[in-house]
Amino acid sequence: MFHSFDYGFGNIMGFRKGACVQNVLDSVVQALLADENRKFIYVEIAFFQRWWRNQSPAVRDIVKKLVSSAQLEFINGGMCMHDEASPHYIDMIDQTTLGHRFIKKEFGQTPRIGWQIDPFGHSAVQAYLLGAEVGFDSLFFGRIDYQDREKRKNENSLEVVWRGSRTFGSSAQIFAGAFPENYEPPSGFYFEVNDASPVVQDDINLFDYNVEERVNDFVAAAVSQATITRTNHVMWTMGTDFKYQYADTWFRNMDKLIHYVNMDGRVNALYSTPSIYTDVKYATKESWPIKTDDFFPYADKANAYWTGYFSSRPALKRYVRMMSGYYLVRLLIAGAARQLEFFKGRSNSGPNTDVLADALAIAQHHDAVSGTEQQHVANDYTKRLSMGYVEAEELVASSLGFLAKSTSDKDYKKPVTKFEQCPLLNISYCPPSEGFLSRGKSLVVVIYNSLGWKREDVVRIPVIGELVTVRDSAGSEIESQLVHISNNSLGIRDYYVNAYLGKSPDEIPKYWLAFFASVPPLGFSTYTVSIAKGGASSIISRLHTTEGTKTGTIQIGQGDIKLIYAVDEGKLTHYINSRSSVEASVEQSYIYYSGYDKSDKDPQASGAYIFRPNNTFPIKSGQVPLTILQGPVLDEVHQQINPWISQITRVYKQKEHVEVEFTVGPIPVDDGIGKEIATLFSTTMDTNKTFYTDSNGRDFIKRIRDYRTDWDLQVKQPIAGNYYPINLGMYIEDNRTELSVMVDRSMGGSSIVDGQVELMLHRRLLYDDGKGVAEPLNETVCALDKCTGLTVSTSYSAVPQKLTSCIHMHGEKLFFCIVSLIQIQGNIYLRIDTVGEGAKWRRSFGQEIYSPFLLAFTEQEEDSWLNSHVPTFSWLAPSYSLPDNVALISLQELEDGKVLLRLAHLYEVGEDKDLSTMAAVELKKLFPKKEISKVTEMSLSANQERAEMEKKRLVWNTGSAPEEEPTVLRGGHIDPRKLLVELGPMEIRTFVIDFIPNILEMVQSQK
Amino acid sequence: MFHSFDYGFGNIMGFRKGACVQNVLDSVVQALLADENRKFIYVEIAFFQRWWRNQSPAVRDIVKKLVSSAQLEFINGGMCMHDEASPHYIDMIDQTTLGHRFIKKEFGQTPRIGWQIDPFGHSAVQAYLLGAEVGFDSLFFGRIDYQDREKRKNENSLEVVWRGSRTFGSSAQIFAGAFPENYEPPSGFYFEVNDASPVVQDDINLFDYNVEERVNDFVAAAVSQATITRTNHVMWTMGTDFKYQYADTWFRNMDKLIHYVNMDGRVNALYSTPSIYTDVKYATKESWPIKTDDFFPYADKANAYWTGYFSSRPALKRYVRMMSGYYLVRLLIAGAARQLEFFKGRSNSGPNTDVLADALAIAQHHDAVSGTEQQHVANDYTKRLSMGYVEAEELVASSLGFLAKSTSDKDYKKPVTKFEQCPLLNISYCPPSEGFLSRGKSLVVVIYNSLGWKREDVVRIPVIGELVTVRDSAGSEIESQLVHISNNSLGIRDYYVNAYLGKSPDEIPKYWLAFFASVPPLGFSTYTVSIAKGGASSIISRLHTTEGTKTGTIQIGQGDIKLIYAVDEGKLTHYINSRSSVEASVEQSYIYYSGYDKSDKDPQASGAYIFRPNNTFPIKSGQVPLTILQGPVLDEVHQQINPWISQITRVYKQKEHVEVEFTVGPIPVDDGIGKEIATLFSTTMDTNKTFYTDSNGRDFIKRIRDYRTDWDLQVKQPIAGNYYPINLGMYIEDNRTELSVMVDRSMGGSSIVDGQVELMLHRRLLYDDGKGVAEPLNETVCALDKCTGLTVSTSYSAVPQKLTSCIHMHGEKLFFCIVSLIQIQGNIYLRIDTVGEGAKWRRSFGQEIYSPFLLAFTEQEEDSWLNSHVPTFSWLAPSYSLPDNVALISLQELEDGKVLLRLAHLYEVGEDKDLSTMAAVELKKLFPKKEISKVTEMSLSANQERAEMEKKRLVWNTGSAPEEEPTVLRGGHIDPRKLLVELGPMEIRTFVIDFIPNILEMVQSQK
Repeated sequence: MFHSFDYGFGNIMGFRKGACVQNVLDSVVQALLADENRKFIYVEIAFFQRWWRNQSPAVRDIVKKLVSSAQLEFINGGMCMHDEASPHYIDMIDQTTLGHRFIKKEFGQTPRIGWQIDPFGHSAVQAYLLGAEVGFDSLFFGRIDYQDREKRKNENSLEVVWRGSRTFGSSAQIFAGAFPENYEPPSGFYFEVNDASPVVQDDINLFDYNVEERVNDFVAAAVSQATITRTNHVMWTMGTDFKYQYADTWFRNMDKLIHYVNMDGRVNALYSTPSIYTDVKYATKESWPIKTDDFFPYADKANAYWTGYFSSRPALKRYVRMMSGYYLVRLLIAGAARQLEFFKGRSNSGPNTDVLADALAIAQHHDAVSGTEQQHVANDYTKRLSMGYVEAEELVASSLGFLAKSTSDKDYKKPVTKFEQCPLLNISYCPPSEGFLSRGKSLVVVIYNSLGWKREDVVRIPVIGELVTVRDSAGSEIESQLVHISNNSLGIRDYYVNAYLGKSPDEIPKYWLAFFASVPPLGFSTYTVSIAKGGASSIISRLHTTEGTKTGTIQIGQGDIKLIYAVDEGKLTHYINSRSSVEASVEQSYIYYSGYDKSDKDPQASGAYIFRPNNTFPIKSGQVPLTILQGPVLDEVHQQINPWISQITRVYKQKEHVEVEFTVGPIPVDDGIGKEIATLFSTTMDTNKTFYTDSNGRDFIKRIRDYRTDWDLQVKQPIAGNYYPINLGMYIEDNRTELSVMVDRSMGGSSIVDGQVELMLHRRLLYDDGKGVAEPLNETVCALDKCTGLTVSTSYSAVPQKLTSCIHMHGEKLFFCIVSLIQIQGNIYLRIDTVGEGAKWRRSFGQEIYSPFLLAFTEQEEDSWLNSHVPTFSWLAPSYSLPDNVALISLQELEDGKVLLRLAHLYEVGEDKDLSTMAAVELKKLFPKKEISKVTEMSLSANQERAEMEKKRLVWNTGSAPEEEPTVLRGGHIDPRKLLVELGPMEIRTFVIDFIPNILEMVQSQK
Repeated sequence: MFHSFDYGFGNIMGFRKGACVQNVLDSVVQALLADENRKFIYVEIAFFQRWWRNQSPAVRDIVKKLVSSAQLEFINGGMCMHDEASPHYIDMIDQTTLGHRFIKKEFGQTPRIGWQIDPFGHSAVQAYLLGAEVGFDSLFFGRIDYQDREKRKNENSLEVVWRGSRTFGSSAQIFAGAFPENYEPPSGFYFEVNDASPVVQDDINLFDYNVEERVNDFVAAAVSQATITRTNHVMWTMGTDFKYQYADTWFRNMDKLIHYVNMDGRVNALYSTPSIYTDVKYATKESWPIKTDDFFPYADKANAYWTGYFSSRPALKRYVRMMSGYYLVRLLIAGAARQLEFFKGRSNSGPNTDVLADALAIAQHHDAVSGTEQQHVANDYTKRLSMGYVEAEELVASSLGFLAKSTSDKDYKKPVTKFEQCPLLNISYCPPSEGFLSRGKSLVVVIYNSLGWKREDVVRIPVIGELVTVRDSAGSEIESQLVHISNNSLGIRDYYVNAYLGKSPDEIPKYWLAFFASVPPLGFSTYTVSIAKGGASSIISRLHTTEGTKTGTIQIGQGDIKLIYAVDEGKLTHYINSRSSVEASVEQSYIYYSGYDKSDKDPQASGAYIFRPNNTFPIKSGQVPLTILQGPVLDEVHQQINPWISQITRVYKQKEHVEVEFTVGPIPVDDGIGKEIATLFSTTMDTNKTFYTDSNGRDFIKRIRDYRTDWDLQVKQPIAGNYYPINLGMYIEDNRTELSVMVDRSMGGSSIVDGQVELMLHRRLLYDDGKGVAEPLNETVCALDKCTGLTVSTSYSAVPQKLTSCIHMHGEKLFFCIVSLIQIQGNIYLRIDTVGEGAKWRRSFGQEIYSPFLLAFTEQEEDSWLNSHVPTFSWLAPSYSLPDNVALISLQELEDGKVLLRLAHLYEVGEDKDLSTMAAVELKKLFPKKEISKVTEMSLSANQERAEMEKKRLVWNTGSAPEEEPTVLRGGHIDPRKLLVELGPMEIRTFVIDFIPNILEMVQSQK
């Protein structure tokens, strides 16, 4: 019997008005002190920290004692109980690490239990990576499909051994359990102030004396649960959302229940925790059924598939992903800081990335990036991310400035170059690149690559003039192309710049300047853009349209990839890769689903959580002329699909994929109908109902339409019931080819028809779906005084002066206060490969989407920059780069000067014939200028040594002879002389590295 | 700044579902411990006691320290915050004494402040008697008339010096204050969990930081209140109904407000209490306006006169009054116990009257006897009273049995006579008197008189047969009369006996046997009823009706009083007292008011609190024949006014008043219209808008129709706005005569037309009036399975087995589970005197109504009783009785063997030419068989010595020259040799008396 929590909903730092975590913790501490039998579990550390900061040393001391006596236990222990559909696995690891290291530092504790009671479906990555690899002994959750739950109740299989990873099998399994009914106490056992359950009245003199009755209720509920549970032990979650505002009301009643129930003797009741429960379950040596894959999608009744939230608030989802990628700049900052500390001494109090880290951590909450919060709460999350970004941006600028200083000039006291960055580059707003020519200057673009591989990619920046030339780090002129910015794009640019900054942009750029840049691993290159004086000038794209043309086809693509368009229909028909000889018929189209309102006899509406399409409508693009721009770097096809959907399809000369930049919205709802917009890629492939979607951007899971592995699916919602979350991408295959689409944020996707891939891009709905958000998902945006719906000044009215309008507070600093866009823009990437060849692109390009080039700008007089600065740089040893199948996903200086390093193998077992193999990383070449004294391998969340974690691992009994298990390949022990880190497929290894503190020598030898 | 409470509403021992006093006290104690600056006041002791009983010695110790350091202060300190309209002053004193003595005993504290924040109007008796005479330094309340409040706000006269007593003037004045708006915190300063007020956010890093804003709000609210308040001090009541469930939420915010407001410096904020506030107000030496009389009636807006509750739940009101009168049996029990203790030793744990005392105490709550609670709460109050009654009834029976034992037989081990009592005598149900004849026995009726005077009154008991004779204590046959019981009465008897007992009565009595009994003061007489064998038999009433008679008049009355009825109209026309030569024209009629529903543009409905009549309808009684019964003891006139109103008018040969026994109901509401039933007595008297109503059964206050002394009344509700509470009675007068009506319970009354007196008897309404009860006042009653509306089994479903049905649990024991009568029965008493002569009857007869004869029955074989038992007895010295103007209102043994004695002078100054004078009581004759060692005069609530209380009394400045004050006559010091207690007009003196413990001698000399 214990207490569960779910605190993010409503208000990320408070929760609902008037109810707050402070009440819970204050009153729980008192209640625990009052009786040492009482126990309480606490889950979400972000909210705990806020409280902890305000506690006196005396209270902290009390709490520490309660924790050490296990009356108060931290479980799950990440900053929040993250969503399992929308977050990227790197974010899940980071936010868990933040929480776990806090618990370790303050309390010396290592949480043992995963506790994902509220998220709306459960991912494989959660089970094996954020569960087993974190060292958890069990994982509990509340929500599983109602059909699945019924079957599991009948078969006593709510509790299982979950093997979430194909690659790791039983080596990363975890004991996992769902409750009989979400995460509520048994009916009639709610004891919050004003709850309706009868309190236990044991004063025989009072008229409401009810001990026998309550004991009978208790026993009946226990027996009822016991009949669907293996072993003699059942657990009750004594709490629910927003409860324990005055903990005593619960404990007082539970005290009495335990007392009288045990006197009664039919069942034995005690204060327990999930840890104690796990231990007693383990001790029974019971055998448990095996569960593989995941628990998606989730429906709690026939018409309530919780698959809408996979795409809810697409702008917030994109912003979270952008910030997540940007947060990798801590690699850069960590590196720069190691140089700087010699000069300045270490400073923990200065600007750092902690604000961004905290904001990103809580943004992973199951009512944050999920898109299922109220508008003002979404605004709050966004604001926190923006503030984190602003601080990180400054650090990046100064770090780059410091690194770019010439060797002879490395004096920290001299000012460094002040770089600017362009977070609104996606809507073609970038003041430095737009203004330099008019100021008679050249533009210096420092391009940082946070991947461990050398990277070549096209950079696009908006410019005003035409006569420009681009030089590389060596000062050589390189090919570049000017691509006309469409009026459509300029309109969006103007509108959103106004919305973000409260003013129109100063300049109006005419072109995108596109050029191909090459950057070393974990390093930067410098490109300069200047007025073309006699030299080779950038080439203006050839522009033509199909307007007036009625028949025929058009082919675009300067390299291996060609796209064929049918002029009469104005649409894509074929995809050709001449290198790999792949040729496929592909069409793309847009559709919308009309959302159910509440008028049906089942009043379930489509909303922030729920996807309940009423009907499907094609969005015709026929007869729309194509506008085509072509040049040496890339070709573009512009299409205005309808008044509120447009897209640009790009094919790069040196890339083998297609980029589709879509702009959707404002979705019209004047007809009173909510709409959910999807795009479809249709082929003739024979895919046999099968498609593959990723789990949190990591493992791919096979999906079969209208089918579940675990039970005989009753199909009630043939569309919503086949939607799955997409974070990295999805693919389909037949015996010849495979088609992959990759995404720039999390969204929902499916394959409703064989040969087809479907992605839901945007949703605007007019009814609340009754699952808790209590607000329709009807995002609107305001630009100054032209505003419909939500206004910024209203929603932030309670904010003190210094933050009254985040739009204006930092002047030119960009604050993403409003991501509740009526209109969203994004990218989908498409590629077709010979079957078996797609993984390489999905994995390596997936890293590139996640970690785009970071651009920093400054101006210079003439061409002086390259002479006075370091033009190109890598953190790695010369010409070393990480293996193709390994990514560096964390590199962070810890407070004690040690470094936290996390390396991830990118391939599953059998995924690629070359790359699903053991890889090795040479640490010496990762840290060429430092001497490693010790490498300690840690659990995934870096709160205990890996060896210690493995030693404690429980071995659960799965009864029948084990299914054939894959041979699990994991890297071996690190030889301290070789310092070679091996990684088997899908392996993520986490290290804390100690260096020999010979900083002086190290720094002086640097360059 | 402090915290106010109002706990009775909703559920008398819990309050609303889930919210409870336990939460408040548990969490307040923690919050006070956390910071010694914090303070809290606690008011209602009944609820505190329940909590206190369950606390460990450690917690009690902490609480005692908090009380002694004044962090926790008890104010008001009665068992509950009693109503001020419906309770009798004796009940108010008793319930306050119970609470005050508890506080004294447990904490050594004496509450200093009256705190009547919620009651709906404020009585003069509250101010001078339960305020000044209790020793309070001030009295605060929340509700005063909205017009009055406006004027007082304009004139800074919300705070006054209140002289509630004409008789005592400034010698019983009190500093009193109303708040600017009921008892709420300033708008925006509510800090309960889930309240809407913004919490004080002082973390500058959080977006909802709002310190400046909240400080500004605070200062603005303080300044606003300061402009309507004299002196620089204002107080805020930081709390309201059902709050402080988790006290920390309030204290946390108040801590911050105090901190930041004081930093700001414009105002100074502190945790205070009403005591501290009173002291600082006093210290200013400010001068205060004088207030006299009371604050009735109360309206909070034009159409919301809270005058309906004066009559709401008339059956509950009667039951409370019956129990209150019955509780005076503790005089009898105390006396008997003093004899018994010699034999048995004192026992505090045995049966006693504590349960009845506690039940009566909480029944005085402003949402109890007021009739403004929900039905199930009314049932709960009633049940508690019944349980108290059952225990007291047993004590009375055994006490009488013991006292009636013959002197030679006074061995406590021998069983005493088992007396029965007949609490349902009012509906002619009395098994012992009905059955003795059929069993061939005689009936012994022991009649106890709890008044201090010899008393002669008619006793009526139902009997089966006709040939009976009555003998007095000396064995002499006396005159008696048999009065036919009407079929109407038998129907009611059958129905309610069924409802109470779950079965029909065994026998059907045919007659009331009426005889005149004479009983010594504080003593009993014994009458026997047996079969008349040759001797004088009881005389059967002459019965005739006016049926068929069309004209003429009929006169009834065998003594001085004659009533003349007009046969054609079937109604009373004249009243004649031949002794005093008073002759007056009097008519009686019934009317009903239709209650407003919610259809008006002001949706204020008539309801439990509010009286808002829509229209007035006469209830015609014309043409109804009179049934007349006449005989030697009394005459009766029976009238069936309409199908649901009947009445019996009685004139006793030896009495000079008229008794009207009315039966009203079930009020029909099938027409969808709620109705409020009043009866009118109309005369030709020229009363000039003036009438007199009592204050809690004590002082009479002059009322002038459509007029208020304190402000220029805007008349919006000419009927509801002229209603006043009646507890004892009301009267009108002109220069010749005065007409008095006396009541058997509290009800509302008025004089809407000159010469007329109006009493509201019953109300049944179909809409909630929106003042908090959240239920229409639509009382229904169930008899077994014939039940409309509320069922007993439903409403008590949560009660454990032993109490499941209070109807059946004690078998023949009568449980008044259902007082929610669809039909009520009661008595009004009428008398007309020469002007200036009415007070004597009102005062002495008022005592008789309050303390009717207590009848106890047993059977005997033949006439053996008088020979073997003590037939008559008085506690007083032989032939001593109290003066006519003094009543003994409390006599109670205390735990330490001392006795608490309270004597009350019954007349106001100038009320009666003979009796408004100093009276004297001889204590030696009050306790003839005991020797008094010490008499200590106490404050009214007996928690401190009177002298000490007087020494501390604050002398408030009332500025201008004092108005002419009456000469205040108070009794002097008690000479320990004479032991004579003097009492001036209206004086109530409270004593604790010590006796010389010579029990053996005392007892042996007894009789």
